[in-house]
Amino acid sequence: MINPEHQPLSSLIWKQDKLEMLDQRLLPETILMLKLYTPEEVWEAIHSMKVRGAPAIGIAAAFGVVLGAKAYDGLFVQGWLDHVKSICAHLATSRPTAVNLFWALDRMMQKASDLAEAGTGIEDSNAALEAEALLIQKEDEEVCRMIGEHALPLFEDGMGVLTHCNAGGLATAKYGTATAPMYLAQERGINLKVFADETRPVLQGARLTAFELQQAGIDVTLLCDNMAGMVMSKGWIQAVIVGTDRVAANGDVANKIGTYSVAVLAKAHNIPFYVASPLSTIDLSTPSGDLIPIEERSAEEVTEGFGKRTAPQGVKVYNPAFDVTPNEYVTAIITEKGVVRAPFKENLAALFAKEEA
Amino acid sequence: MINPEHQPLSSLIWKQDKLEMLDQRLLPETILMLKLYTPEEVWEAIHSMKVRGAPAIGIAAAFGVVLGAKAYDGLFVQGWLDHVKSICAHLATSRPTAVNLFWALDRMMQKASDLAEAGTGIEDSNAALEAEALLIQKEDEEVCRMIGEHALPLFEDGMGVLTHCNAGGLATAKYGTATAPMYLAQERGINLKVFADETRPVLQGARLTAFELQQAGIDVTLLCDNMAGMVMSKGWIQAVIVGTDRVAANGDVANKIGTYSVAVLAKAHNIPFYVASPLSTIDLSTPSGDLIPIEERSAEEVTEGFGKRTAPQGVKVYNPAFDVTPNEYVTAIITEKGVVRAPFKENLAALFAKEEA
Repeated sequence: MINPEHQPLSSLIWKQDKLEMLDQRLLPETILMLKLYTPEEVWEAIHSMKVRGAPAIGIAAAFGVVLGAKAYDGLFVQGWLDHVKSICAHLATSRPTAVNLFWALDRMMQKASDLAEAGTGIEDSNAALEAEALLIQKEDEEVCRMIGEHALPLFEDGMGVLTHCNAGGLATAKYGTATAPMYLAQERGINLKVFADETRPVLQGARLTAFELQQAGIDVTLLCDNMAGMVMSKGWIQAVIVGTDRVAANGDVANKIGTYSVAVLAKAHNIPFYVASPLSTIDLSTPSGDLIPIEERSAEEVTEGFGKRTAPQGVKVYNPAFDVTPNEYVTAIITEKGVVRAPFKENLAALFAKEEA
Repeated sequence: MINPEHQPLSSLIWKQDKLEMLDQRLLPETILMLKLYTPEEVWEAIHSMKVRGAPAIGIAAAFGVVLGAKAYDGLFVQGWLDHVKSICAHLATSRPTAVNLFWALDRMMQKASDLAEAGTGIEDSNAALEAEALLIQKEDEEVCRMIGEHALPLFEDGMGVLTHCNAGGLATAKYGTATAPMYLAQERGINLKVFADETRPVLQGARLTAFELQQAGIDVTLLCDNMAGMVMSKGWIQAVIVGTDRVAANGDVANKIGTYSVAVLAKAHNIPFYVASPLSTIDLSTPSGDLIPIEERSAEEVTEGFGKRTAPQGVKVYNPAFDVTPNEYVTAIITEKGVVRAPFKENLAALFAKEEA
């Protein structure tokens, strides 16, 4: 099942008449590229989480719109536009809380409206929608690639790099966020030795990060989460890099549970701790990390996550999905626009001010 | 399946004609007390790891000798002694590397030899062997209880206490080592709030520690290993206590993988880190922890430990069974003879000198 050319696996590949989608639910045991020909098939794939990762969900939905628009067999632009609108409305119900999904569908709908308003013919409009979906995908890839470009000078040939959870290429158009410097390093012949925490309880590190890096031919070693400290003490790790779910205005970082422990361990071993974050994930309206709500998830994720019960019935379980790493543990936040260091509040604000200027 | 009286479950209960043994392989899903009537049944139970924990294995073997000796149907003391010798030799093959097993069998054999030499009758000798096996069990219980007595003043009502792996009552005659203060606290109406790391890859914390504390009616909450740091940062933990596989002369502590990470996290949060250790586990002939060999175990423990494959085929895995926590992270080592603090080299040596004096 190893990818013979050691190319990073793409989770979404557009093939004009169909969207090819890697079924992430079957990983790592089975690599299956689904062939989706209709918006209904795309709806079902998003709904059943065959595709995961906010950017990837948005991209899949955009191609779903393209598949639906191309299937319109009427003659009138207004009918086409109504058709596209109903497809967008339907796709928006596939995952009710996915912000990227709504964002991508709004963008596709806006494009369709603009085309119709300009009196563009149906065939040309379909081509333009296809171009828009490809652009959404390309922009996401570019954000990830630029994060990688800014991160890459922080890494040197031969370094050991530890990561936690999956902020990888499968969740995005390509490259991922925390994994972007790993893929770019490989493209340029820089050898990194990656250590992937398995990331209990859902094991995204084992099932996804180890999988996608192995597929790409990158040197990756899987660890249980509790081995990170020992591996650092052996001198095997020169940098930690993780993704994030939200960065507060002061540089506090919410990310998958366990990230905070890794950050404290990194500091104790004088290892830099980097956070890869698109600008879209930095939330200047949240002053600090203690204001970020932490979702608690079901006990069963911990007690019977993998087809077998591994803890006593009725035992109390604490299962927070995320934790917050205070900014003093963060060496730098790496965005598509550059590397931000302390003082984070001032420097993050300056980065956004520059963007808006 | 909850124990109605909230008594700690005993893994070994002697009932004159039989040894009752908790089948630890079936935990936590099934609580089955095996009834063993012959040394062959005890051999099989040790060999197939129905009983685990060095002290518990030794105790089980001692009762196996008693069962075998009682079954002797000859008339002559020499024949009885030869019979006991063959039983000991056979039981010694049940787990070839278990030091406590050999120690307990040697002690039983020595007792049998002494009895035969003194011309004791077979019936009296059988009673004396039974008393010796019960004494081995009682002595182990007493060591654990005294560890608990010395540890107890370090804990206060309402404290949160985190532990890692299982240094619990199931592995010993009663009380366990790290769990001894938890059981004693409960006996005396002191409420501790215990947090048990699940302890990947083999999940002894989830399967055994959470199970035995829950059975005993002690307030226990199960955590994934990577949650320990977050829980500490929330102020929920006032002390950490763990067991140990070997303490070096300088106070460095070898214990289950992940212990070192917990110790570093405890220090970063100014939480005391205690190690519960019988004197028999302190090895003055090992000067420091870096001389303790670390066993590496199979990748499959990490990649398919839950009854289902959870990592890609062929992925590299690092799976050390233990790690070493340097003495500077250890607040105190709690033995059956008292609490030892830094400087550990001097104070451990003094403790043993006092023992020998």
